[in-house]
Amino acid sequence: MTRYKLTIEYDGRDFVGWQRQDNGSSIQGALEDAIYKFCGEPRSVQGAGRTDAGVHALGQVAHVDIDRPSRPDIVRDAVNYHLRPASIAVVAAEAVPGSFNARTWALQRRYLYRIINRRAPLVTQNGRAWRVQGELDLAAMRVGASALIGHHDFTSFRAAQCQANSPLRTIDAVRIIAEDTDPPGPFAIARAGTEIIVEVKARSFLQNQVRIIVGTLVEIAQGKRDPDSVARALAARDRSTAGVTAPADGLYFADVTYPASGPAT
Amino acid sequence: MTRYKLTIEYDGRDFVGWQRQDNGSSIQGALEDAIYKFCGEPRSVQGAGRTDAGVHALGQVAHVDIDRPSRPDIVRDAVNYHLRPASIAVVAAEAVPGSFNARTWALQRRYLYRIINRRAPLVTQNGRAWRVQGELDLAAMRVGASALIGHHDFTSFRAAQCQANSPLRTIDAVRIIAEDTDPPGPFAIARAGTEIIVEVKARSFLQNQVRIIVGTLVEIAQGKRDPDSVARALAARDRSTAGVTAPADGLYFADVTYPASGPAT
Repeated sequence: MTRYKLTIEYDGRDFVGWQRQDNGSSIQGALEDAIYKFCGEPRSVQGAGRTDAGVHALGQVAHVDIDRPSRPDIVRDAVNYHLRPASIAVVAAEAVPGSFNARTWALQRRYLYRIINRRAPLVTQNGRAWRVQGELDLAAMRVGASALIGHHDFTSFRAAQCQANSPLRTIDAVRIIAEDTDPPGPFAIARAGTEIIVEVKARSFLQNQVRIIVGTLVEIAQGKRDPDSVARALAARDRSTAGVTAPADGLYFADVTYPASGPAT
Repeated sequence: MTRYKLTIEYDGRDFVGWQRQDNGSSIQGALEDAIYKFCGEPRSVQGAGRTDAGVHALGQVAHVDIDRPSRPDIVRDAVNYHLRPASIAVVAAEAVPGSFNARTWALQRRYLYRIINRRAPLVTQNGRAWRVQGELDLAAMRVGASALIGHHDFTSFRAAQCQANSPLRTIDAVRIIAEDTDPPGPFAIARAGTEIIVEVKARSFLQNQVRIIVGTLVEIAQGKRDPDSVARALAARDRSTAGVTAPADGLYFADVTYPASGPAT
C-alpha cells in the first residue's frame, strides 16, 4: 500500500463543500468515487481543509492510501480521467511516507480572497470574486488588518455553527494586495476594475474566519467602520461586533505548507 | 438623440458570437434587447469587432443612438440591469459625437490569447484558456512571431469562410508573455501551470486570424514545425501551410484604440 499526497484544484460553485454530505456533491466524495473507479478500492480521502460550499481551491492537499501499485503521475492522470466532467483536477500527486497526514502535518494554510472593485456586474469572474462598488480606502483596510495578526480569541470572527473546540487561533499574516491596473497588465484578464486580494496565513482557521475577516476589512475600506473596531471586536468575543461574512465566491484555498519531514509539533 | 460609446465585457461561451444570428443568442442581440427594454427604442448596436462563438471580450467597443435623454452612467447601469442574467456587462458608457463609429474609427484592435501550459485538465479556467501540455520553446515561438509583423497577404491565416475582400493586413505587434510563476504571485489565481499570453495588435483582422496565428506558434513551441515555416506559410497563400486554429476558449478581444478626434484615415 502506498500513501499519496494529492494537490487539488477545484471550482467550488458546483459543490456542497469539501466534506461528504447527504445533500449534494462534495469534492471529497467526487475524489473518492474517482479513486474507486481507478483502482477498485473504497478509500477515504483526507483533506487539509474542509472548505465550505462555493469556496474554491488552487492547492488543497489531501492524502489517500492505494494498494494497486502505480506511479504517482499515473494516479494523477487516472483520477483526473475519472473525475470528468467535475470541476476538480489533481494537479500533482506524489508518494509520501505512510505517516504523512494532510491535516495534522500542516504547518500553515494560505487563503486568498479576491475582490473586484467596480460598478458593473461581474461577467467573466462571476462566482469567482466579490464585486465591491465605490471607493475603497486600502490604507485604512491595512490598519484594520494589522490588529488581527497574532494569537487571539476569534469568537467574533467565526460562524455560529463553528464546531472547533477553541476559538483561539494565531494569524501569521494578513496582506492587502492591489493590482496595478493603470495600465492593466496582460494578466489582468478578469475585467475592468481594480482587483484587490486579501491574503491570510495561519496554521489553522475557524469556520468562516477568512470570510468574516474580509467582510470586516471591506466595511473599513468603505468607511462604514473604523480600523480600531477590529481590536474592539476581538475583545468583545461577540459575532455581532465584527462585519458581514463575505460571500464564498471570492475565497480560494491557495496552499498548505508542510515540514520537510515529520509532523508539525 | 445622443450617440453613446459603450465598452463591453462578455464571456463568449454562452453566445453564437457578436453578430445577431438566427440560430442562438448573440451579444449584439442581447445588447439591443436590453437597450429596447431601457428606452423603448429599437436600436442597432454597431461593434468594433465581430467576435466568433466562444470568443470573450474585455473591452469590445460599440456605438448606439438613443433618443431618451440620459446621463451616460444611467445608460450603463440601466443596460446592465436589463442584460441580467446574460454574461455581458457594459463597463463604461460615454456620450460621443454623432460621427463616432466604433468600427470605422478604430486605429488599432488588441487581442489577447491565454494558454495554460500544464498536464491536468483546466478547472477554474475551463472555457477561458487553452490548455497545452508538454514543454514549450518560447524562444522559438518568438522567432516565429517576428515573421508575422508588418504588411502581408494572410491567406494562409484566415478561415475558409472569411468574407473580407482582401487578405492583406498589417500586424503591428505580436508579443509572447510568460507569467513568472515561481513562486506564483497572488494574482496567478488561475491554476497550477504556467500561463502564456499571446498579444496581437493590428488595425483590423481576418476571420480566425489570431487563432490560426496562435495555433501555428504553439506548434512551433512544441517543436512540431520550425520558426521559418511562418514565412513559408505566408508566401504559400494556402491555409493548409499554417497551423491549427486554436480554440475560441483562450481568445479575448482586449481593447480598441481610437483617435483623439475624428475618424482614422
